[in-house]
Amino acid sequence: MRDLIIIGGGPAGLTAAIYALRAKLDTLLIEKGMLGGQIALSDVIENYPGFPSISGMALMEKFEEHAKAFGLRVKQAEVESVSAEGDARVVKTTEGEFRAKAVIITTGAKPKSLGAKGEREFLGKGVSYCATCDGPFFRGLKVAVVGGGDTAVKEAVYLSKLASKVYLIHRRDKFRAEKILQDKAFSIPAIEILRSHVLKEIQGSKNVTSATVEDLKTSVRKTLDVEGVFIFTGIIPTTEFTDAEKDKDGFIKTNGRMETNIPGIFAAGDCRTTPLRQVSTAVGDGAIAAFVAEAYVENLGEKG
Amino acid sequence: MRDLIIIGGGPAGLTAAIYALRAKLDTLLIEKGMLGGQIALSDVIENYPGFPSISGMALMEKFEEHAKAFGLRVKQAEVESVSAEGDARVVKTTEGEFRAKAVIITTGAKPKSLGAKGEREFLGKGVSYCATCDGPFFRGLKVAVVGGGDTAVKEAVYLSKLASKVYLIHRRDKFRAEKILQDKAFSIPAIEILRSHVLKEIQGSKNVTSATVEDLKTSVRKTLDVEGVFIFTGIIPTTEFTDAEKDKDGFIKTNGRMETNIPGIFAAGDCRTTPLRQVSTAVGDGAIAAFVAEAYVENLGEKG
Repeated sequence: MRDLIIIGGGPAGLTAAIYALRAKLDTLLIEKGMLGGQIALSDVIENYPGFPSISGMALMEKFEEHAKAFGLRVKQAEVESVSAEGDARVVKTTEGEFRAKAVIITTGAKPKSLGAKGEREFLGKGVSYCATCDGPFFRGLKVAVVGGGDTAVKEAVYLSKLASKVYLIHRRDKFRAEKILQDKAFSIPAIEILRSHVLKEIQGSKNVTSATVEDLKTSVRKTLDVEGVFIFTGIIPTTEFTDAEKDKDGFIKTNGRMETNIPGIFAAGDCRTTPLRQVSTAVGDGAIAAFVAEAYVENLGEKG
Repeated sequence: MRDLIIIGGGPAGLTAAIYALRAKLDTLLIEKGMLGGQIALSDVIENYPGFPSISGMALMEKFEEHAKAFGLRVKQAEVESVSAEGDARVVKTTEGEFRAKAVIITTGAKPKSLGAKGEREFLGKGVSYCATCDGPFFRGLKVAVVGGGDTAVKEAVYLSKLASKVYLIHRRDKFRAEKILQDKAFSIPAIEILRSHVLKEIQGSKNVTSATVEDLKTSVRKTLDVEGVFIFTGIIPTTEFTDAEKDKDGFIKTNGRMETNIPGIFAAGDCRTTPLRQVSTAVGDGAIAAFVAEAYVENLGEKG
């Protein structure tokens, strides 16, 4: 039986691997696709300290090299379930079953896509799902924000301090966001509210140059001159495979030690309930999860 | 009145600055000495993801350059107090008074030094206060561990998996550490317990080569052939200047959003109660503190 299985090879998983391998835990990382996670899709990251400007792909290659220098072993497989059998934590995957004393889940989360034409094509070229990450790239430019919940309205306000103009596009007549957030957004002249509108298409050449919206009441379409399109219609964690306690949106609940409600199962990074989802926070989470898991494995040895 | 004052220029403070400045908060960082904090004293860091091996000084120079690229302004001053006056947070320093809507405290913590001869001279050259940071540099070598509490005994166990031999040196007859930790440590053949012993002197040329201990009962001295000396006799946070709620050791209590019990005052990094104190965790904390402080400042604007 191994000491530790890490599920997911994004920034949280690779950081947990660096810490665990350095502490000589017998560790296996299981990843269904490529190492790097969602962030590998980002064109430019400016807020992981130490790298003023780097692509997500290049940064994740550095993380991967770093973990490999300590002997990282990766199994490519999709995880189907994680369960507890006595002191063993059993990870069932498409490539068979793996056992360890502890498991760290770092499977991340994905933004819900709108399905608008051009949305995928211009991802990282004007289309973004994260204002904290990408907002500052749109200083003085015009952007569209799609969504009607707290995040959409809050980020529209945030973006209005950077962008010259923000179109806030919501498919319904009423916003779901907190009243105080709505009042704030509605009071800002740079924010133009487009109720009962949907985003149909994003246009551009290399980068986004405009977006077409449709008024659902009149079916009239118009084109907005925007260089950025921020989509905040939800974020879905990859956590179906675990019975660890989750919040209403499916994120795994942990304490500050990254412990879930199941002993020996930890969660770190975007897949857990957390106020912020960034490489910086994934790194902090991953370090703590590995450190606490190491102590857990050590205690288990004592008991056995 | 500024938006934000960050107190302390180590990894947590510089990360908070990067996030706050990128979000266009009017931010001032107050640091009493050099930017970089305690970690700048580390010879080699191997566990900040992205940099497989770098000196603390070089890494902190990168953080500093990164923050300066976003317009970091630093005031060199020692903070005497932080207080709340209505919506203002007032920071009194040796160089005058500064006001902001929010304050992030990132003043770190310092290990208690033993005062043994050679302790300061060989810091980072065999003397360490952090097993997670430096333990892996002593694979297959002999080390001494000083202390009698939970941390000392736990880290002696951890180090016994890396080092070939661990001398656990404690000035008293009995250890304060949890019974289960003691049992574990006492059961490991590679750990030799030296009760009623004190560390008198650390010797070496470029790096540590030996340490002299004294038996307090017999006054007999002996020299241990060790390449590493780990000192775990306590860690002291720099938090006297604030009335924010603290734990029994003086660390500032926060929730997962880095909020203290005083609205508008946040804490991040080593100065707060946290399971692990690393560059990685300071970076995660700093990012969250700045993100939450930004929302706090934004809401304050709404109220006013």
